[in-house]
Amino acid sequence: MTSNFTQQNRQTEKNNSVGIVEKQFFTLTDPFLLLESGEKLEQVTIAYETYGRLSEKKDNAILITHAFSGDSHVAGHYPDEPPKTKPGWWDFMVGPGKTINTDKYFVICSNILGSCNGSTGPASTNPETGKPYGLDFPLVTIGDMVEAQKKLIDYLGITKLRAVIGGSVGGMQVLEWAVRFPQMLQAAVPIATTMRHSALAIAFNEVARQAIMADPNWNNGNYYQGKKPDLGLAIARMIGHVTYLSDEAMRRKFGRRLQGKEAFSFGFDVDFQVESYLRYQGSKFVQRFDANSLLYITKASDYFDMIDRKTNSFITLEKQSQGQIKFLVVSFSSDWLYPTYQARELVKTLKRTRQNVSFCEIEADAGHDAFLIPDPKFCNLLRGFIDGIA
Amino acid sequence: MTSNFTQQNRQTEKNNSVGIVEKQFFTLTDPFLLLESGEKLEQVTIAYETYGRLSEKKDNAILITHAFSGDSHVAGHYPDEPPKTKPGWWDFMVGPGKTINTDKYFVICSNILGSCNGSTGPASTNPETGKPYGLDFPLVTIGDMVEAQKKLIDYLGITKLRAVIGGSVGGMQVLEWAVRFPQMLQAAVPIATTMRHSALAIAFNEVARQAIMADPNWNNGNYYQGKKPDLGLAIARMIGHVTYLSDEAMRRKFGRRLQGKEAFSFGFDVDFQVESYLRYQGSKFVQRFDANSLLYITKASDYFDMIDRKTNSFITLEKQSQGQIKFLVVSFSSDWLYPTYQARELVKTLKRTRQNVSFCEIEADAGHDAFLIPDPKFCNLLRGFIDGIA
Repeated sequence: MTSNFTQQNRQTEKNNSVGIVEKQFFTLTDPFLLLESGEKLEQVTIAYETYGRLSEKKDNAILITHAFSGDSHVAGHYPDEPPKTKPGWWDFMVGPGKTINTDKYFVICSNILGSCNGSTGPASTNPETGKPYGLDFPLVTIGDMVEAQKKLIDYLGITKLRAVIGGSVGGMQVLEWAVRFPQMLQAAVPIATTMRHSALAIAFNEVARQAIMADPNWNNGNYYQGKKPDLGLAIARMIGHVTYLSDEAMRRKFGRRLQGKEAFSFGFDVDFQVESYLRYQGSKFVQRFDANSLLYITKASDYFDMIDRKTNSFITLEKQSQGQIKFLVVSFSSDWLYPTYQARELVKTLKRTRQNVSFCEIEADAGHDAFLIPDPKFCNLLRGFIDGIA
Repeated sequence: MTSNFTQQNRQTEKNNSVGIVEKQFFTLTDPFLLLESGEKLEQVTIAYETYGRLSEKKDNAILITHAFSGDSHVAGHYPDEPPKTKPGWWDFMVGPGKTINTDKYFVICSNILGSCNGSTGPASTNPETGKPYGLDFPLVTIGDMVEAQKKLIDYLGITKLRAVIGGSVGGMQVLEWAVRFPQMLQAAVPIATTMRHSALAIAFNEVARQAIMADPNWNNGNYYQGKKPDLGLAIARMIGHVTYLSDEAMRRKFGRRLQGKEAFSFGFDVDFQVESYLRYQGSKFVQRFDANSLLYITKASDYFDMIDRKTNSFITLEKQSQGQIKFLVVSFSSDWLYPTYQARELVKTLKRTRQNVSFCEIEADAGHDAFLIPDPKFCNLLRGFIDGIA
């Protein structure tokens, strides 16, 4: 990212913000959602936001799927926010005249099932008991999240999406969309993602889960009336942040610089800037995220697998979809959570099922987080692809 | 590692074991050890073991320095061990006829200061209070560990070591030896190590420390009379194990294989083998290691830096040592904790101070742990180097 681009980006933000937006809620009319596990989830609510206008033909909708700790708030600001509140998490990407141009497209993002930002999850009230679910919440899969999203898209009266676009766990949802509802997609853009977690990715998730479950306040998931497992959740988030960056990014951002001092403390307080950064990220996260949601969503991402366990074969897209969905697979060179070799595996698999696939690895030193950082290469690539769909 | 080699190795172990060994203890005769922090540590004891015989000229001694959670027990078995107890941690490397041949060399290994396997550390009795130190134990550096080792070598009557050899944090000690006592070394073999921790390595250590300190049983380091912070220590160890392996090694060892089942549990019990492995490693570690020692030793390794912070210059070896110490720097291709680029930085630094340096990167997919796994390439390299020192 050049500082020139930053400058330009700031101006774009000012001039081309989606402005004030509101979180909306959709409650499934079905009595329950039948989950992959076989369990039934009743009274499912999905929080979502939209930007831009749906065309009369309802043919300009783009669904954005968010990453594991994300939410429906892609761009703009909520009413009555304190000044200097950051805009939505992909604000640089979505807005009038921006890469995902809300002058042209109707953009939708919904909070995933199992999360804690408006959609039904383990912190929601269990209709059977009138208390928060906790661990009585059934395990949901990426497929279940997509099934719920599909109900929302139906409700909005949209039969065909221009594209589904998402990074990380959002990319897994993109792939699930392509597998489950190929006839509803013109294009699919899985970014910084994988067909299935490596043992390394599972390992990081498992340590994060164990950190939460080791916190006595976690209390087997039943903490909504008392103290929360903030310490465990902060550790889990710190682990996450290490995987979102890269060796290079950390060297550039922090190196071995000390935090506000010139010599070592010879104790266990913060010495290095990187320590301070991690502690800050951990403590900030506990204010906005539910520990149980982390357990559920990491497990869903560990389970996600485009290769069928029973048949050991690739989960093929429906035959009628062959070549009908335009795929753009994007990886980042320094992403070591979902490295480029995994994106290439995905591309190979998609090609084997005769899909129309483009692939780009973007040179970036920011690691997995690169898709959340403005970068003209990435934005231009995406803009060109999206505008070429129709 | 070919299975042929494994076979050969097992035989070697049987025939060429160092046999029964005993842990010995050396208490410094100095009233105190003056630490880098400026603090004084009284009544310092160092646990150590030796293998082979010291020659009359006392010119065949090799000091092995152990990694962060290691101990003095390099090879062989203790008396009265239960059957099937594993031998010392580098048994494949050290013994009669082995790579570090105890028919020729007198091998010494001492437990590092700050550890918990016989040498003075935070679990030791504070002579001032008669109680375990806990956090009253002063912070020790890699340099302090080496100063204590040097006293042991003096006590053994050895004025010149044939070599100092060590991996990981052991490699840092090797480098400190070369900087502090160049006249006492013929050769130095830093393996799978670094001149200084990257931000990434510090980040992993910091998360591990935070996991321990988040455990309420940790009790600000004062837990020796009560429940120990086992859960926190287990999380810390799990984090460590992720960094010791590599993406490739984990794929090979575990992939996405399930643990003793054919389908997902749809819960938070173990599903994947890698989860089971990590939980096992965590629970095993708490039986043998002190949580405070982990805090102290990780901090020492984070502080370690061959580039002087005050002058921002390379810490040069004493002039009289130029070219007198033979260095062999070894890295492993899949080590992402101390990647090969960091070994190359070390080699460059050593060459700049006109040292006699050989360097080898060994192709291995086992990650950082590769130096603890029998590999003919590695063993042959080391054997050739050691036998060529004199």
